[in-house]
Amino acid sequence: MTNEIRVQKYGGTSVGSAEKIKKIATKIKKLKDNDPNEKIVIIVSAMGKTTDDLVKLAYICAKTPNPREYDALISTGENISASLLAMCLIEIGIDAISLSGAQAGILTEKSHSKAKVIKVNPKRIHQALDQNKVVIITGFQGINEHEDITTIGRGGSDTSAVIIASSLNSSLCEIYTDVEGVYTTDPRIVKNAKKLSEISYEEMLDLAHLGAKVLHPRAVECAKTNNIKLHVRSSFSDKEGTIVKEASSMELNKTVTGIAVNKTEAIVSIIGVENKAGVAGEIFELLANKNINVDMIIQSVKYGNLNSISFSIEEDDLQKTLKAANTLITKLHAKEIKTDQNIAKISIVGVGMTSKPGVAAQMFKALGKHAINIKHITTSEIKISCVINRDQADEAQKILHETFNLHK
Amino acid sequence: MTNEIRVQKYGGTSVGSAEKIKKIATKIKKLKDNDPNEKIVIIVSAMGKTTDDLVKLAYICAKTPNPREYDALISTGENISASLLAMCLIEIGIDAISLSGAQAGILTEKSHSKAKVIKVNPKRIHQALDQNKVVIITGFQGINEHEDITTIGRGGSDTSAVIIASSLNSSLCEIYTDVEGVYTTDPRIVKNAKKLSEISYEEMLDLAHLGAKVLHPRAVECAKTNNIKLHVRSSFSDKEGTIVKEASSMELNKTVTGIAVNKTEAIVSIIGVENKAGVAGEIFELLANKNINVDMIIQSVKYGNLNSISFSIEEDDLQKTLKAANTLITKLHAKEIKTDQNIAKISIVGVGMTSKPGVAAQMFKALGKHAINIKHITTSEIKISCVINRDQADEAQKILHETFNLHK
Repeated sequence: MTNEIRVQKYGGTSVGSAEKIKKIATKIKKLKDNDPNEKIVIIVSAMGKTTDDLVKLAYICAKTPNPREYDALISTGENISASLLAMCLIEIGIDAISLSGAQAGILTEKSHSKAKVIKVNPKRIHQALDQNKVVIITGFQGINEHEDITTIGRGGSDTSAVIIASSLNSSLCEIYTDVEGVYTTDPRIVKNAKKLSEISYEEMLDLAHLGAKVLHPRAVECAKTNNIKLHVRSSFSDKEGTIVKEASSMELNKTVTGIAVNKTEAIVSIIGVENKAGVAGEIFELLANKNINVDMIIQSVKYGNLNSISFSIEEDDLQKTLKAANTLITKLHAKEIKTDQNIAKISIVGVGMTSKPGVAAQMFKALGKHAINIKHITTSEIKISCVINRDQADEAQKILHETFNLHK
Repeated sequence: MTNEIRVQKYGGTSVGSAEKIKKIATKIKKLKDNDPNEKIVIIVSAMGKTTDDLVKLAYICAKTPNPREYDALISTGENISASLLAMCLIEIGIDAISLSGAQAGILTEKSHSKAKVIKVNPKRIHQALDQNKVVIITGFQGINEHEDITTIGRGGSDTSAVIIASSLNSSLCEIYTDVEGVYTTDPRIVKNAKKLSEISYEEMLDLAHLGAKVLHPRAVECAKTNNIKLHVRSSFSDKEGTIVKEASSMELNKTVTGIAVNKTEAIVSIIGVENKAGVAGEIFELLANKNINVDMIIQSVKYGNLNSISFSIEEDDLQKTLKAANTLITKLHAKEIKTDQNIAKISIVGVGMTSKPGVAAQMFKALGKHAINIKHITTSEIKISCVINRDQADEAQKILHETFNLHK
């Protein structure tokens, strides 16, 4: 498409220091030098660990920080990086303006911390573009009808970028990050992991949910819904990255597209609960109330008529979970609670899987051949996940990468 | 006055860490415990060195940061401290809300960095007060008619506090800082320096301009104009501080109220310029164009018909000043340029001075008796300043404190 507004998002490591921000400015200047009339909108995250530092301050001040104040606080990081980038651009002769979420017209729900965007009123964005300014917009933040600052959830700058691209009728959103694209699996573990030139929204969604940190799942979902292609690429090179787009136009020959590994979960088992209706409901309602996210749930029958219920959670939530589970022991007449932290979840993902039977068997056999015991299995249409010992995760990742020919 | 809204301002050291902010919250809670219906508005500065750190970042990004972006950047420090204080209060059961300059309705001129406040529309402040919330407002910032963030100049939080007090019809503004009030002179130098229970706006203005850092001169001016009393006191104690107010109601018996010393200036002398009209104008116009602030100006006749012009500037500006002055040497046929950095300006200030002759003589005699040479003298209605050797400044400060009985 011609005359489309170019939308780029730069993540926290890309704007991690004033020096890095200067580099980004030089990168943007090149585009303007190439086509002085190109309309460019940039969305930025906060610099490096700024947001984490602000979160720490909040939790010194309050055990449960007030959500309105929390949003006002943690949104400041993006204001800093946006104005610095604008300054850098102006300094090298490129007219630019930073806009906060409010100034950019990003209206969200009233609620705080994970506010959904209701609509974008891009009037001021267009005004600035018409004056041939590069427009720098703070990611992660918006404003609600009370004119209070809201944030749209962690990893939200990717989502901000997609929403803004959509409101500007752009069909593509470039996501600049510290890696060169989406890989078949983590190249730090598997040396011959390959960068994918493209991947479907669905696969990317699963990989993102399963532990690939390159994109936030919500941003992928949002891109899918609004039919916006994502180009995931490196801030520090000019190489083409990975295009995330509709599966339909892609070859389905490849069975497995990528492998994700999550090593941050633990399994909690409540052993010997009564086999009666409502028990599982009671357990997971309690966990939900405590804001504990449950990933896999495995129910198995043991001890005659008694059940065991196992589930996986983020390791960080383990103490909170055990505290909650213990309150249930008496109520449910459970025998005991066990935990297993020596686990990793390894998942293979691919839209081609749906049309090819035997993929699961191939996975299990390959692991078995190398004496890697599978503790649990969960599957969906386009992915198969196995829980294995954490200390065998790297080995398993290499084996499966080889098994499904991802290095080719 | 009853039912007056209480306005307090806390400076950067008072909110220098999350722990200190918690202490301020406890202090405010005591007021609310004492009178649950009291209406309280708090103005905060940025935490400790936050603003300085942001300024550093800006100057890495640009030699001359764009003013709009600069304001957007350096105003974020106040948003952080305001939301943290609100969180701390809510955590200990006191309902509170932080408001940015924009949310508090502080409308300024269009211009950036040193924008003057045009008016305050305290609608949202009153709304929140009516809901019995403690209102925390970011100092130093406002918004202009384009909905761009502006800042009102360094030291501006004091001014913000006075302006807000005025817009809320309060007659008093409490300024909490890291010292217990305004002293007769710097207690770090003169051990028996005394805290003043009150001081006039005029005296405070002179002391502030002459080097006493406790209050920003602009805030004092603003308080005087709006007839708002200031109570300067310590954040870390409950002791009464110093009231800054109209001189009329005060005793004028005391000749000298305080002594200020400035050790950060240098004197530049342009020796042997032609004695013709317009020379001084040429020199000081050039310096003004280079944004160099000149304090004292001393013109003396030497070398027959040739003049010497000396002036004092901030030592930090010395290189810039010499560079500018050198361009004038040829033009003005000057003989040479001399600099003197071994200087200090010691000033005695007091409204009582106007009605008592001989104060200057008393000052000069006291210094002379201790072999402290006076290099230059400048006077105004309520102050006398002498330039002396910097290494004799502490001694002079003690002598004059004694001479004018300020320890009593």
